[in-house]
Amino acid sequence: MRLAELSERSGVSTATIKYYLRERLLPPGRPVTATQSEYDEDHLRRLRLIRALIQVGRVPVSTARDVLAAVDDDSRDQHSRLGAAVEALPHGPRPDEADPATDAARHLATDLLRRVGWHFNLRIAEHSGAFHMLVAAVAALHRLGYPCDTAHLLPYARQAAELAVADLDLVEEYETPAEQVEAAVALTVLYEPVLLGLRRLAEAEESNRRFRTGG
Amino acid sequence: MRLAELSERSGVSTATIKYYLRERLLPPGRPVTATQSEYDEDHLRRLRLIRALIQVGRVPVSTARDVLAAVDDDSRDQHSRLGAAVEALPHGPRPDEADPATDAARHLATDLLRRVGWHFNLRIAEHSGAFHMLVAAVAALHRLGYPCDTAHLLPYARQAAELAVADLDLVEEYETPAEQVEAAVALTVLYEPVLLGLRRLAEAEESNRRFRTGG
Repeated sequence: MRLAELSERSGVSTATIKYYLRERLLPPGRPVTATQSEYDEDHLRRLRLIRALIQVGRVPVSTARDVLAAVDDDSRDQHSRLGAAVEALPHGPRPDEADPATDAARHLATDLLRRVGWHFNLRIAEHSGAFHMLVAAVAALHRLGYPCDTAHLLPYARQAAELAVADLDLVEEYETPAEQVEAAVALTVLYEPVLLGLRRLAEAEESNRRFRTGG
Repeated sequence: MRLAELSERSGVSTATIKYYLRERLLPPGRPVTATQSEYDEDHLRRLRLIRALIQVGRVPVSTARDVLAAVDDDSRDQHSRLGAAVEALPHGPRPDEADPATDAARHLATDLLRRVGWHFNLRIAEHSGAFHMLVAAVAALHRLGYPCDTAHLLPYARQAAELAVADLDLVEEYETPAEQVEAAVALTVLYEPVLLGLRRLAEAEESNRRFRTGG
């Protein structure tokens, strides 16, 4: 298909597609004349992922480029390719190493991973963005004096393990390894607000059960 | 205590405390001289909540003011006070009503709430920020053609119900109704990055289980 059709089918303007091509987020089409190129279904699928990252997930362009490079790296096995692609996503501010709460939070997070039996990747996990995200959040809770010890965190870790089963079930609805890696990245980002919205709705329901008086 | 001690015990600079006083986030102290006021433990606790909202949760000052007004409104029962305080938190961009995906997403979200048996607040929920957050996220998944129907969402809703039990257990560690409402708001915000970080770590573990090849 030509650029105009790619734009129509993807819902992305031709100007934006040209920008993604210039920024090397989208691979070039096959040249058919000096000024025109031909695009295919792979371009359409890639555009969908770019929109998920940039328009919905608000991932910066340079970060999106790193994520896509990891998605495309088929020299790795499926697991480490998927891990590298998710790792390239933004993970919020890094823990503040000057703060003593960070050290305590790191110990607590490591202990938690051991207790829930996430053994395989303990050494890898401790250098991952997701681990830093957890440590920064736990340190903030400690610094402000809110409850957050292993006993408090365990139920959340167990729920996270169940969520990951649902996440990977969704990923496995896709057939090819390339599509699965793309879906893993997109669904990690796109299901975050689903999860946070549902948690707040569930909190309202649970609060009603416990606290509502009268009417 | 005087301003200097409040600053030392809270870890918030006197300049920032004065700013919070001017912005009416922090109630004024009890005047002891023409230029000095006396602060108490309530001010310390309130400062902690303000930091949770503004410094960690990155909630805008005007939004924080609305949240705190709802926290302080003791004319309501505990459930609706807690609900109003969480409702005043930011919930991301509103769903785009011009997009046909939004209407379909709203039907799906309503159906989901019925199926998980969150009956009490269906009418209230449909006007809540949390519901709009869910609808906007589901609409984005539909628009981009990623899997997201009732069967996909049900496991997430069931996990959210379990998370809400953990959330409200934390809230009930506090004794007074006022402290419980404050904690509900702070913990809603502060546990979000805990949850998202743990989900990504759990995804890596689950991916290892399913996809890893070789040693």
